[in-house]
Amino acid sequence: MKIAALAGGVGGARLAHGLAQVLPPADLTVIVNVGDDFEHLGLRICPDLDTVCYTLAGLANPVTGWGRSEDTWHALESLATLGGPGWFRVGDRDLGLHLERTRRLGRGQPLSQVTQDFCRAWGVAQRILPATDDNLPTLVYTEEGEMPFQEYFVRQQCRPRVTGFHFEGAQAARPAPGVLEALAAAQVVVFCPSNPWVSIDPILAVPGVRAAVQSRPVLAVSPIIGGQTVKGPAAKMYTEMGQEASALAVARHYADLLAGFAFDQVDAPLEEAVRGMGIHPWVTDTLMRTVEDRRRLAAEVITFCERLTTDCL
Amino acid sequence: MKIAALAGGVGGARLAHGLAQVLPPADLTVIVNVGDDFEHLGLRICPDLDTVCYTLAGLANPVTGWGRSEDTWHALESLATLGGPGWFRVGDRDLGLHLERTRRLGRGQPLSQVTQDFCRAWGVAQRILPATDDNLPTLVYTEEGEMPFQEYFVRQQCRPRVTGFHFEGAQAARPAPGVLEALAAAQVVVFCPSNPWVSIDPILAVPGVRAAVQSRPVLAVSPIIGGQTVKGPAAKMYTEMGQEASALAVARHYADLLAGFAFDQVDAPLEEAVRGMGIHPWVTDTLMRTVEDRRRLAAEVITFCERLTTDCL
Repeated sequence: MKIAALAGGVGGARLAHGLAQVLPPADLTVIVNVGDDFEHLGLRICPDLDTVCYTLAGLANPVTGWGRSEDTWHALESLATLGGPGWFRVGDRDLGLHLERTRRLGRGQPLSQVTQDFCRAWGVAQRILPATDDNLPTLVYTEEGEMPFQEYFVRQQCRPRVTGFHFEGAQAARPAPGVLEALAAAQVVVFCPSNPWVSIDPILAVPGVRAAVQSRPVLAVSPIIGGQTVKGPAAKMYTEMGQEASALAVARHYADLLAGFAFDQVDAPLEEAVRGMGIHPWVTDTLMRTVEDRRRLAAEVITFCERLTTDCL
Repeated sequence: MKIAALAGGVGGARLAHGLAQVLPPADLTVIVNVGDDFEHLGLRICPDLDTVCYTLAGLANPVTGWGRSEDTWHALESLATLGGPGWFRVGDRDLGLHLERTRRLGRGQPLSQVTQDFCRAWGVAQRILPATDDNLPTLVYTEEGEMPFQEYFVRQQCRPRVTGFHFEGAQAARPAPGVLEALAAAQVVVFCPSNPWVSIDPILAVPGVRAAVQSRPVLAVSPIIGGQTVKGPAAKMYTEMGQEASALAVARHYADLLAGFAFDQVDAPLEEAVRGMGIHPWVTDTLMRTVEDRRRLAAEVITFCERLTTDCL
């Protein structure tokens, strides 16, 4: 089963990690959001991409989900002592990555190439691709004005009420090398349980990606469970955008793209409504607490994918 | 006794630290070489300036003399794993400084202002000034071609035979704010036991500095003891430049500037030769093994300065 998985940060990385455990490496390509990338301390920081890479490399911080395991914070402490901006938490080992990536980008290497080299160094056999090598920063429109994503997400801790989103540069962005090919080759495209507004939408905003996705069967896994998210502001965003925060809102978000939709058993009552949208529902336990949960959910996703592609539903 | 001390890295920082212990803070200004500054990993790194600041702040690594005490190397390890350049050893806490300095310089703050702010944050009461806020990179001419200083010093470990030095940008460089004022106000200018070729000469190469130094009594402390240096390539450089490596070579190097010259007791036989140059000799124990050694040597330097300025020699 050849899968192209679209992913944002922690939740997406967890399912991608599960898929990496149940699929042969060559059968999985993870296409990652770069809308939350930003320039900080002169460094190019790619939070979602790094979370996916660290997770598949077995280097992710198991407590936070982001950042490196067993990292230290000495550089940030030293910088903050000197009056520098300490609001974005960068660990020391993580910093080594940002420095080397920034150095390579400065020499003209595209982000996709840098990512591939890093994955090779870590022994990650699956293909992890940024959605685009171009800049595509997410702007969050809020009642307190528009702000870059990390300003909203980390510095303001998602406090401002959102009114919309803009993916700057989307018109000119080109899919990173391999993205359209991976989508075309995929038997099923999986939308990981990532934030639809700011993780999956920016990937779909890259010209050519939505059409490529649309040509394949798509299965989305709901990031909303019982009206809430495990992590991140997706549920809050639905409410502020005038929609009830629910798995159904996620299904509606992607509506015309979806062949199948997996959501949690606590949302089982939504099954008929999903089916009514012409989307195959799959009710299961979608919460990934442990590494074994990731593997189990991924195996179920593959089973669901097989049924979708063989019309056994 | 108002002192302006010219200093390079470890040896200079040690005497400056001693002077800081025996003088009221307002009476000491340390003017530091920036010829070894360079851009690395997108960061502005100022090895001599940082060594002096760390030492006076009590933060220096007591083993190496450079870098921070109790530092870790996680960022560098991570970067090297990814194929990045690990030859220049930057600790994590040290990295925090470089990041914040680079950030501030990028916003247009001059190096002298950044240094002053950092010293305030660390509680350093003495004034530490870079010789200039302008770029003044030392080029080392060697039998293997010319190379930037850190390439010669760290990467090649001073292996190539030197044939000369060039302080690029010296003609256009301006003394940092406060440098000429500190020299004019000094009762004695002290040349710390730093490398004459690549630590003190670059400071003197900044237009206006040599003249300001020349107008004051100058006391140099020899970095060469018994034909050798405690650290660094000064002795090797003298030999390669066709001179015998000795304290006398240092006295000759500075000849027309010096009123007094302090050197080690192992070089006591040179006393007459120094006196013959019209320079007051001061023979003592110049090796600084401990913090107490720094204080003792500094106290002797002050005594020598007092004699120089009151003509009691």
